[in-house]
Amino acid sequence: MTTSLLAALRAPARLAPESGIVEVVNAARERADLVPLWVGEGDLPTPEFICAAAERSLRDGETFYTYQRGLPTLREALARYHERLYDRPFSPDRFFVTGSGMQAIQIALQMVAGDGDEVLVPSPAWPNFAAAAEVLGARAVPVEMAFSPDGWTLDLERLTAAITPRTRVLFVNSPCNPTGWVAGREILAGMLDVARRHGLWIVADEVYGRFYYGEGGRAPSFYDICEPDDRILFVNTFSKNWAMTGWRIGWLSAPAELGQVVENLIQYSTSGVAAFMQRAATVALDEGEAFVAEQIARAVRGRDLVCSALDALGQARYAPPAGAFYLFFALDGHPDSRRLALDLATGTGLGLAPGSAFGAGGGAFLRLCFARRVDHLEEGARRIAGWLAR
Amino acid sequence: MTTSLLAALRAPARLAPESGIVEVVNAARERADLVPLWVGEGDLPTPEFICAAAERSLRDGETFYTYQRGLPTLREALARYHERLYDRPFSPDRFFVTGSGMQAIQIALQMVAGDGDEVLVPSPAWPNFAAAAEVLGARAVPVEMAFSPDGWTLDLERLTAAITPRTRVLFVNSPCNPTGWVAGREILAGMLDVARRHGLWIVADEVYGRFYYGEGGRAPSFYDICEPDDRILFVNTFSKNWAMTGWRIGWLSAPAELGQVVENLIQYSTSGVAAFMQRAATVALDEGEAFVAEQIARAVRGRDLVCSALDALGQARYAPPAGAFYLFFALDGHPDSRRLALDLATGTGLGLAPGSAFGAGGGAFLRLCFARRVDHLEEGARRIAGWLAR
Repeated sequence: MTTSLLAALRAPARLAPESGIVEVVNAARERADLVPLWVGEGDLPTPEFICAAAERSLRDGETFYTYQRGLPTLREALARYHERLYDRPFSPDRFFVTGSGMQAIQIALQMVAGDGDEVLVPSPAWPNFAAAAEVLGARAVPVEMAFSPDGWTLDLERLTAAITPRTRVLFVNSPCNPTGWVAGREILAGMLDVARRHGLWIVADEVYGRFYYGEGGRAPSFYDICEPDDRILFVNTFSKNWAMTGWRIGWLSAPAELGQVVENLIQYSTSGVAAFMQRAATVALDEGEAFVAEQIARAVRGRDLVCSALDALGQARYAPPAGAFYLFFALDGHPDSRRLALDLATGTGLGLAPGSAFGAGGGAFLRLCFARRVDHLEEGARRIAGWLAR
Repeated sequence: MTTSLLAALRAPARLAPESGIVEVVNAARERADLVPLWVGEGDLPTPEFICAAAERSLRDGETFYTYQRGLPTLREALARYHERLYDRPFSPDRFFVTGSGMQAIQIALQMVAGDGDEVLVPSPAWPNFAAAAEVLGARAVPVEMAFSPDGWTLDLERLTAAITPRTRVLFVNSPCNPTGWVAGREILAGMLDVARRHGLWIVADEVYGRFYYGEGGRAPSFYDICEPDDRILFVNTFSKNWAMTGWRIGWLSAPAELGQVVENLIQYSTSGVAAFMQRAATVALDEGEAFVAEQIARAVRGRDLVCSALDALGQARYAPPAGAFYLFFALDGHPDSRRLALDLATGTGLGLAPGSAFGAGGGAFLRLCFARRVDHLEEGARRIAGWLAR
């Protein structure tokens, strides 16, 4: 008997986990009355002025190979954008255009973690970082955060205790998908201090940095406190701010001296991003602030709406999200989120993501995306109430 | 003293090689009179009817997340395309849309090779496959092919002798970039037999399969001889046939039972390809045959032109390419292709790729892309003749 094809694959590839949300999606995706709040994207299409830039570029014949690191004009636009946002100078040389924020994570991980290495992941967490690490043969080590209705908290002692001689990376996703946790400046400094003392790299996922419900207009950032020689790789995406989830374009921000390595890793994975997509991304950065403001205002309204609706149920527990655009909540008497998400999806057509998909500490929670139409958010809340009262 | 940031990276990432062509490109890219035949792409922009499909999709708001494996309609179009080309049935389930042929290679390699594994690469070879393997911690083992003016040949005994207990993969690029070698059906069967006997995976890069200058309208393919349980992963791209190099869209063709693994590896690298790009790719497959025929006819003319011009020099050695769109030639008295390419680029403004960039056996050769404008090809030949006669 011959080995099956599947068994002949390498273990890290064969064992890469399936998305824990897909099972729920598959259970109800065909319902005509579906209210899909399980996704990690808003429901506005990409603004027309951004699409138009891509169309112009296509008509200009920009369909040939281009710079592996990204168009110089886009890298300059990224530098300007960061200067506006963080109020300090940035060189275009530290920005590298990638085929999605996810690819920025893959490349960051390839730079710093491999077979047998360990990466620390404060948890609950968006599962793709841990999975990408495991595809490379590394081990994702969750560091469970503590829930209270006042907010999720990361215990730095617990984080430090999880460090072993194999630990190479600390993943920090703030504002956090799914919990809405935002690391304050003091916690950021604490994590940076831990990383410095132990020679760890930080992969900083600040993708939701604009979606922040505290003071200051944006979430605190490692950019506020880091030094040039700190081992920090920032991953980011055009997906959320500019409603470009489907485009698959993001960026890696890293010390310029690592540029040749990043270029090589892009060369040997996707060999760059289409120039016409980069033209659109450039316009998004340079002319997209009004749209970003509209998106944030929409998220604020959505957040208020779903928090009020859950409060009215009298049996929901959650920490009001300080950032990102998800409500991560539990319902008393329903501790199994996978079961609960399946029941809500098949019973009412409301799509929520089960917290079990987000690893340690998430099992009792559901993730609801509130960067969505008001009528869908209201209807979603009604269906939860109706289902609980059934 | 602290470790430098560069030194703190993992070795396989830090040591990934730079492209060996870039040094030459950088020496002359700014010349106003440049004739750039060093690239791996034609000089026609993507046809308008293909771009128009992407523009329509953008205007229809197809800017959200989509299927990780690719749009079902594109996967069906891929199946139809393969059925026409190989005259046998294909299921859409075996096709997976990737962010370039390069990403198809990366995913194929992740499935079957990692730390300490060996991959066999008949050489001279397009360097990106070996580099992508080495980024994963595997070792690329060149198997040198023999040059004669009658053609390049791969010795199956030499190939077999290179197999060790660590060998996992045989890379087969036919038609071959850079040599123009095309594996006949007998050699394909011989390689498949070697792979079967030693439990190796074949990664089949048949990207240039349509650019074939023998009988039958396309190059012989592993599709002509393989069985359903053979360990073959086919990588391909929209880049060459449809002049879409800059788009970064390709496909992996693999046994359908591996589908979930491929989906997961896409999820944790780029999370799919933009739907509007996939609409364009679908139109390319379904309506692009006239354009492909035009491209092939253009390559035939280019091949004849440069072969005649080199013959007239009286000091060029090459095997007439049986496929792909490159002439790989040596000039008597100029054995160092890196030096020669630099001299031609800086001395005459003619851009050719040094054979040294293509590994073992390539050192004395230059690669010239002939899928280009006739006046550029003629001017390129004139510059070589003028430089030799200087």
